[in-house]
Amino acid sequence: MAAAAAAAAAATTATTATTRRLSATAAAWAWTASGAARHQSTMRLTVDTINPNVRRAQYAVRGELAVKSEEFRARLAKSGGDSGLPFEQVVSANIGNPQQLDQKPITFFRQVCSLLENPELLKKRDVLINSLGYKPDVLDRAQWLLRQVGSVGAYSASNGVPAIRESVAAFLERRDGFPADPAHIFLSAGASSGVNTLLNVICADKSTGILVPIPQYPLYTATLSLLNATCVPYNLDESQAWGTDMGTIEAAYDAAKADGVDVRCIVIINPGNPTGASLPEDHVRAVLDFASRERLVVMADEVYQTNVFVGHFHSFKRVLRTMQRESPGRYDDVELASLHSISKGMVGECGHRGGYFELVGFDPDVEAEIYKFVSIMLCAPVIGQCLVELMVNPPKPGDASYELYDREYRAIYDGLRLRARALHKAFSQMEGVECAEPQGAMYLFPTIRLPPRAVEAAKAEGRSADEFYCMRMLEATGICVIPGSGFGQADGSLHFRTTFLAPGTEWVGRIVDFHKGFMAKYR
Amino acid sequence: MAAAAAAAAAATTATTATTRRLSATAAAWAWTASGAARHQSTMRLTVDTINPNVRRAQYAVRGELAVKSEEFRARLAKSGGDSGLPFEQVVSANIGNPQQLDQKPITFFRQVCSLLENPELLKKRDVLINSLGYKPDVLDRAQWLLRQVGSVGAYSASNGVPAIRESVAAFLERRDGFPADPAHIFLSAGASSGVNTLLNVICADKSTGILVPIPQYPLYTATLSLLNATCVPYNLDESQAWGTDMGTIEAAYDAAKADGVDVRCIVIINPGNPTGASLPEDHVRAVLDFASRERLVVMADEVYQTNVFVGHFHSFKRVLRTMQRESPGRYDDVELASLHSISKGMVGECGHRGGYFELVGFDPDVEAEIYKFVSIMLCAPVIGQCLVELMVNPPKPGDASYELYDREYRAIYDGLRLRARALHKAFSQMEGVECAEPQGAMYLFPTIRLPPRAVEAAKAEGRSADEFYCMRMLEATGICVIPGSGFGQADGSLHFRTTFLAPGTEWVGRIVDFHKGFMAKYR
Repeated sequence: MAAAAAAAAAATTATTATTRRLSATAAAWAWTASGAARHQSTMRLTVDTINPNVRRAQYAVRGELAVKSEEFRARLAKSGGDSGLPFEQVVSANIGNPQQLDQKPITFFRQVCSLLENPELLKKRDVLINSLGYKPDVLDRAQWLLRQVGSVGAYSASNGVPAIRESVAAFLERRDGFPADPAHIFLSAGASSGVNTLLNVICADKSTGILVPIPQYPLYTATLSLLNATCVPYNLDESQAWGTDMGTIEAAYDAAKADGVDVRCIVIINPGNPTGASLPEDHVRAVLDFASRERLVVMADEVYQTNVFVGHFHSFKRVLRTMQRESPGRYDDVELASLHSISKGMVGECGHRGGYFELVGFDPDVEAEIYKFVSIMLCAPVIGQCLVELMVNPPKPGDASYELYDREYRAIYDGLRLRARALHKAFSQMEGVECAEPQGAMYLFPTIRLPPRAVEAAKAEGRSADEFYCMRMLEATGICVIPGSGFGQADGSLHFRTTFLAPGTEWVGRIVDFHKGFMAKYR
Repeated sequence: MAAAAAAAAAATTATTATTRRLSATAAAWAWTASGAARHQSTMRLTVDTINPNVRRAQYAVRGELAVKSEEFRARLAKSGGDSGLPFEQVVSANIGNPQQLDQKPITFFRQVCSLLENPELLKKRDVLINSLGYKPDVLDRAQWLLRQVGSVGAYSASNGVPAIRESVAAFLERRDGFPADPAHIFLSAGASSGVNTLLNVICADKSTGILVPIPQYPLYTATLSLLNATCVPYNLDESQAWGTDMGTIEAAYDAAKADGVDVRCIVIINPGNPTGASLPEDHVRAVLDFASRERLVVMADEVYQTNVFVGHFHSFKRVLRTMQRESPGRYDDVELASLHSISKGMVGECGHRGGYFELVGFDPDVEAEIYKFVSIMLCAPVIGQCLVELMVNPPKPGDASYELYDREYRAIYDGLRLRARALHKAFSQMEGVECAEPQGAMYLFPTIRLPPRAVEAAKAEGRSADEFYCMRMLEATGICVIPGSGFGQADGSLHFRTTFLAPGTEWVGRIVDFHKGFMAKYR
């Protein structure tokens, strides 16, 4: 655990020396301007009087480095070529935001959306088809969706448009080979909103513990901090391509339980963020077996399920149903929530905020409470719900739009795989850097070993060594990546996370050059 | 206070007989299936073990009546004219969902959105203009917005697209005649999300008190319940067209303060939901003066600011800046958050989930915490952000799209006013019903006086009398309205809330007929 994290953890009431449990906030990099002297405020609301759970929450993905990179971007835009910066372009490799970078939206999806936004266009069928190149299946789909939603400007049912939930269920049946029931599917404003809903319902108070992988996407620790619940971290196994190690998970669970924590749920991110791992089926089985034995709710964050470059994606739902079939009665008690999103994969429509979660084995009364909870925010964005429908039910072979859809989909997939490999190759040539093979998701999470002088220089600046490294990289190259401390990392190790979404490979070379210079300076 | 509300309030730890403070949940109608016997669950998560704050939260707008009305709608759709129900159509007067009913989207807005969704269309300028009737300003606006957002499928900055925040600031300057700074404007997924953000930051713990009007939109009590903070209710003055009565507010504040509650904020909904009131300027001034004196943050929910049928809308920002100019130094300490939305007014795009809030006088460090909080959910839906831009910067006189925009806008406004008056007239002729003149918003909130036998029949069914009345109305007419207990109402009084969005006036007659029959039956 990094020094800052350790200090934060020590300050957390429930933490004792006998456990490796982490305070909900400790795993994430400190967001608030650490250097700013706190002034004596005469305001009604100050950082000292607001909700302390908000103050403690940390979310590195959009933290200080991201803010600084936006300042650089604005400076470049205004400078007219004379910015004084040693680069001509900012590369936002800090966030999985595909369409901000190279990824073009899928034509079929956006054509349908244009008709959903302006249904008047459907009265001009000839113009759409003959002058604008819309295929008949685009019009048909838009008409069908409009019949279901009425208007994309109207609220839908709180849990989403019924027909779209049916489409999701049909998709899950095709994907997994097992039945799915739309009654247990909730459409959400992206997977983040789904995670927020589920954690809000699951966490009763401080004594509730949630097993969270380290490194993790900081949404989990931030939300647990907001709820003042207990994060029970378990380290992923970097030596096994960031897989799950059941011994580590069980040790974390046992220690927390011995400490009086009511551990209720285990979070799995597969494919992994930030790790880029894709779990083999036996790891999924082992987690489900453990969850059944210890009566833990399984929260499977599967938003990268189509970003898999090595092997196959194994959904928790399919593996659970398979285990239930193999051992009748044995795994019937497992409560599983699995999440998906339109933000990632080849869809990449994160700005539209769409997603869903499916509940398996939940108490109907608890589902009613979840329904009530999502009602308070009314409904997920309806156009985002429509994009969920399009994602789970894209053009099929034989449909007029299929060929273009298939070509675009493959091109995006191949481009991502290509860049992942190029980046991986570059990292493998860098001194003191080691990086697991990219298996899935949109990220690489290399280990970096920095010279002691760099660690000292970081300390003098009040930063962790990985944060110091990433800040220097941004200043030298315009490339924004996130230090491993923003996700949590094993004691004494340093990492950074980069997406492989940015176009071209020139920027990869800039990282290589920066690293050489950095190592030379601090050796 | 209704009986159920009183019981819930009595059960709340902090409530004593000396205060009229209400538990955060007590003002709202019980959502969960009240009749269902609770079974002994063997599940990991049960209603008895999940987050008790979620369990206690209540949100009547989408509660049992709404669910039942959807069942009726489905039954009608499947029956082919033989549903066995005494009506042919369900009228959803329970929720301000304009485009579900009569309200058509504004053409200019949706034409721009169609181009934002499919920017490829912009390459066919001739087709758009000559064959589809798009005006050049539609294309220009879409091009400008696309330059600002890149792609509507990409995440924006956490607080919203900078150029859109600038448009909002320019709108506020025009509306109020005082400067506005985009740095203090946050784009949100509807006003609900903005309220959620602000209450999350403001409420430190159970001791934090928030002054909330009764009746209120139940988002407030539900969110305070989720945060386990204290709702300090103050009754609006039904005898003064649901205006604010400072004596009542001060008494509620003093009692809460004497009881050790740290009252930090006062919520004002203007124009009022569910009351339909529009506050005169002197009420706004009195609230700001009180807030300054007692150092309360003012949260002004102004989502119905264009739905004003009597007098004018007086924004809290304009009135505050006016008071600051009149009495230099006197009101500089006021912290004001004002919220707006694309969901209501003549825009009515609630399915797109867009809105904003402006902060005035907030501590910059607190604003940084708000930024961090909204970052965790990444950003508001980008197409909803674009609709915020279109709402605050619609076509101007001289623009090619102006004439149509203006015609559509006026027709919606006039239609709402007409229906509000028709409904008001009908209510004024109903026995035992009194209703304030519709001044604003989308709702009427009549008082109903029911015969003692109706009250007894309700009790026998385990319902409050207003809930009983609304349930019978739904069963007899297919019209879904919400009982006053869902919003809170003064002790011993009964109300219901209805929108006046449904087309035509035939359904108004159905209410009149139902009421006659109901009164005759229970007299």
